[in-house]
Amino acid sequence: MTKKDIGIGLLGLGTVGSGVASTLLSKSDSLAEQAGALLVLKKVLERDISKSHAFKIKPDTFTNHIDEVISDPEVAIVIEVIGGEHPAIEYIKQAITNGKHVVTANKEVIAKYGHELLSLAREHNVALRYEASVGSAIPLISPFQQDLAANDISAIYGILNGTTNYILTRMSQEGLDFALALKQAQELGYAEANPSNDIEGIDTIYKLAILSSLAFHTEVDPQDIYREGISRLTPQDFRYAKEFGYAIKLLAIAKRAGETIEVRAHPAFIPEESQLANVNGVYNAIQVEGDLAGKLIFYGQGAGALPASSAIIGDVLTIARNICHSVSNVSRVKLNQKLAVKPMSHIRTRYYLRLNVADRPSVLSQISEILGKNNISISSVIQKESDLSSQTAVLVIMTHPAEERAVQKALEQVRQLTVVNEVGNFVRVEA
Amino acid sequence: MTKKDIGIGLLGLGTVGSGVASTLLSKSDSLAEQAGALLVLKKVLERDISKSHAFKIKPDTFTNHIDEVISDPEVAIVIEVIGGEHPAIEYIKQAITNGKHVVTANKEVIAKYGHELLSLAREHNVALRYEASVGSAIPLISPFQQDLAANDISAIYGILNGTTNYILTRMSQEGLDFALALKQAQELGYAEANPSNDIEGIDTIYKLAILSSLAFHTEVDPQDIYREGISRLTPQDFRYAKEFGYAIKLLAIAKRAGETIEVRAHPAFIPEESQLANVNGVYNAIQVEGDLAGKLIFYGQGAGALPASSAIIGDVLTIARNICHSVSNVSRVKLNQKLAVKPMSHIRTRYYLRLNVADRPSVLSQISEILGKNNISISSVIQKESDLSSQTAVLVIMTHPAEERAVQKALEQVRQLTVVNEVGNFVRVEA
Repeated sequence: MTKKDIGIGLLGLGTVGSGVASTLLSKSDSLAEQAGALLVLKKVLERDISKSHAFKIKPDTFTNHIDEVISDPEVAIVIEVIGGEHPAIEYIKQAITNGKHVVTANKEVIAKYGHELLSLAREHNVALRYEASVGSAIPLISPFQQDLAANDISAIYGILNGTTNYILTRMSQEGLDFALALKQAQELGYAEANPSNDIEGIDTIYKLAILSSLAFHTEVDPQDIYREGISRLTPQDFRYAKEFGYAIKLLAIAKRAGETIEVRAHPAFIPEESQLANVNGVYNAIQVEGDLAGKLIFYGQGAGALPASSAIIGDVLTIARNICHSVSNVSRVKLNQKLAVKPMSHIRTRYYLRLNVADRPSVLSQISEILGKNNISISSVIQKESDLSSQTAVLVIMTHPAEERAVQKALEQVRQLTVVNEVGNFVRVEA
Repeated sequence: MTKKDIGIGLLGLGTVGSGVASTLLSKSDSLAEQAGALLVLKKVLERDISKSHAFKIKPDTFTNHIDEVISDPEVAIVIEVIGGEHPAIEYIKQAITNGKHVVTANKEVIAKYGHELLSLAREHNVALRYEASVGSAIPLISPFQQDLAANDISAIYGILNGTTNYILTRMSQEGLDFALALKQAQELGYAEANPSNDIEGIDTIYKLAILSSLAFHTEVDPQDIYREGISRLTPQDFRYAKEFGYAIKLLAIAKRAGETIEVRAHPAFIPEESQLANVNGVYNAIQVEGDLAGKLIFYGQGAGALPASSAIIGDVLTIARNICHSVSNVSRVKLNQKLAVKPMSHIRTRYYLRLNVADRPSVLSQISEILGKNNISISSVIQKESDLSSQTAVLVIMTHPAEERAVQKALEQVRQLTVVNEVGNFVRVEA
């Protein structure tokens, strides 16, 4: 079979871009076998032309003008691995408008503009694929569109960010505090110098927006997703979690509830015997619950140049095969359901409360009275760390399911009690 | 959008067939939305016409003549859920020859005739899809063909049979012996009256043949897969496994080694902290290792009417969408690598040996001499269950990696020793 080569334009030659470029070059033969045509790296958008030596790419492949990539008639597929919102979104739109198929790993752009970009791609009769945007090499986007398409999805629970999962694993296993665990993650290259995107859950809500929109066939604006980071967690919380039989994870949650969906990402207690509780280090895992499939879990590395290349080149191969077979590459993703996001104040779950209180007999009754008046019932309570000198103690309360707004209101009232020194933390509990 | 209906012919209305039929009927609207056309159950091959009442299907939809299904011009897609080799293989061939797309859950037929059927389907320009044949609802077939296509797969480790995993879980957690655990599995409907297909690993090697042929792009004849069932395992083995930090699973293993592949299914010790060791009950899990993706694990229910329906109707939807978009449904699976299966005698792994011996000082030296002469080195040994009255003891030996034929030869020699009453069991250890 001799087919015309398929030209690739690569936007960005950072960690992921380098992985993609070197894989395209080193696996050229086997990829051609898979695709049915030679995949040729025609253009690379990268300022630093010295990088061309490392990849044995002809220097004139490199350019720092986006137009030289997306207007090149020999480029059929554009891979965007610049990351971030700008200029990636503009480049992707221009590439699509120029009739190029686009493969991207950009969770921020897909979370914010996915619906618009898919429409634009349909209009221009090209593919827009983004398997690498969530869970890296873990197949998720295409299973939701294809293998699981017969299911009504009821829930997704995900550990979607390797950096925070690494930090939480160290805190749990070694009793480190957050700052030290973060510092070590940074030293090992698992966390960035400015880690806020990861530790504040921003990365997680982008990924959750993408998954939940596919699962529920609806647009999910990442701004509508409730978000809480992991920096408030302390070694104490991990100790008490263990005592009650739980692990603590930064959990992305999406649930269908009639014509609304619940979407949120925050630290959560999960039973330590659950599969997700045993996902440690930089690994990601996504649990999907469907009416037919039951519970499925997908597990793998959520980051890194090679896992991302696996997903990106998988997408490229799908497009290339369609080109070789003269088959339309137009996406058939439908996000045409109109499901409202349930306000966070209305969600119901169980709660872990850690309070620093005066070590006096009446304390528990005052606190439980407030909880009771707010319709929050206690499932268990332990008093810990009585300190004779300061006359303080730590009260750890696990509640039965209660409404978020009731818990928030109760905590406001609890904070006013003179016997309560501090609400140390509260963490939602997911069964 | 008004499109022509897409007619479905269903072969078999047993457990899985009933799940498929009731899903097609109850989800008619949402499936039409997904497919782009109404999926209409046109014909059902089933002798027992009384079943039509249960499904509110018109009685004349039922037939006991295969020709009335596969020659019906209104049937575009044939779903085969009869199971077993005959007459399923003949029906599938006839359906393909008649230009029908085929979706099947039949692992035996795909394992034995997959290559031939895929060629036949290509020749007749129709789809042959079989996502349900391995791991039921767990997406595996399409990830191997698509999402993971850029990877060189180095290994697959699978727990592919829910019945045996249920039995092993009960044996491990409750100390039951094999016969009792099997009996309870039968009472709960997890094992069939004649359980040999499951407990002897036959079901597992069919599934492994399918996965390994996709992973390595080669034909794998299930007859070439080494197979050992679970009936020789005893509560003792589980106790010793735990003592050494292992779980015991019926493990399907496929590894690439140069131009050969290693494919085998047998009970194996796996580290108890590994993800697969924590797959319990009727669940399945498949670990895939790729050069780009790293380690991925897919987990879910491996059987049941609804999970199978999830995969089957997922395949139907893929075909239906292609029909609606006038896109070719022809499979692009390539099994064109010629990889030989490594003889079992040549594999290298670690071994657990349990020997019933005379309780005498020279025993260990005699046994270790034989092992040493066969180039098998011992990593640890414990002596247990000394019985004063019978003057016997149990010797449990863990070896370093050794060649299978050396171990078999050594065991033959060990059996000849007068101080050895019995080789109680030996189990391969996978790290």
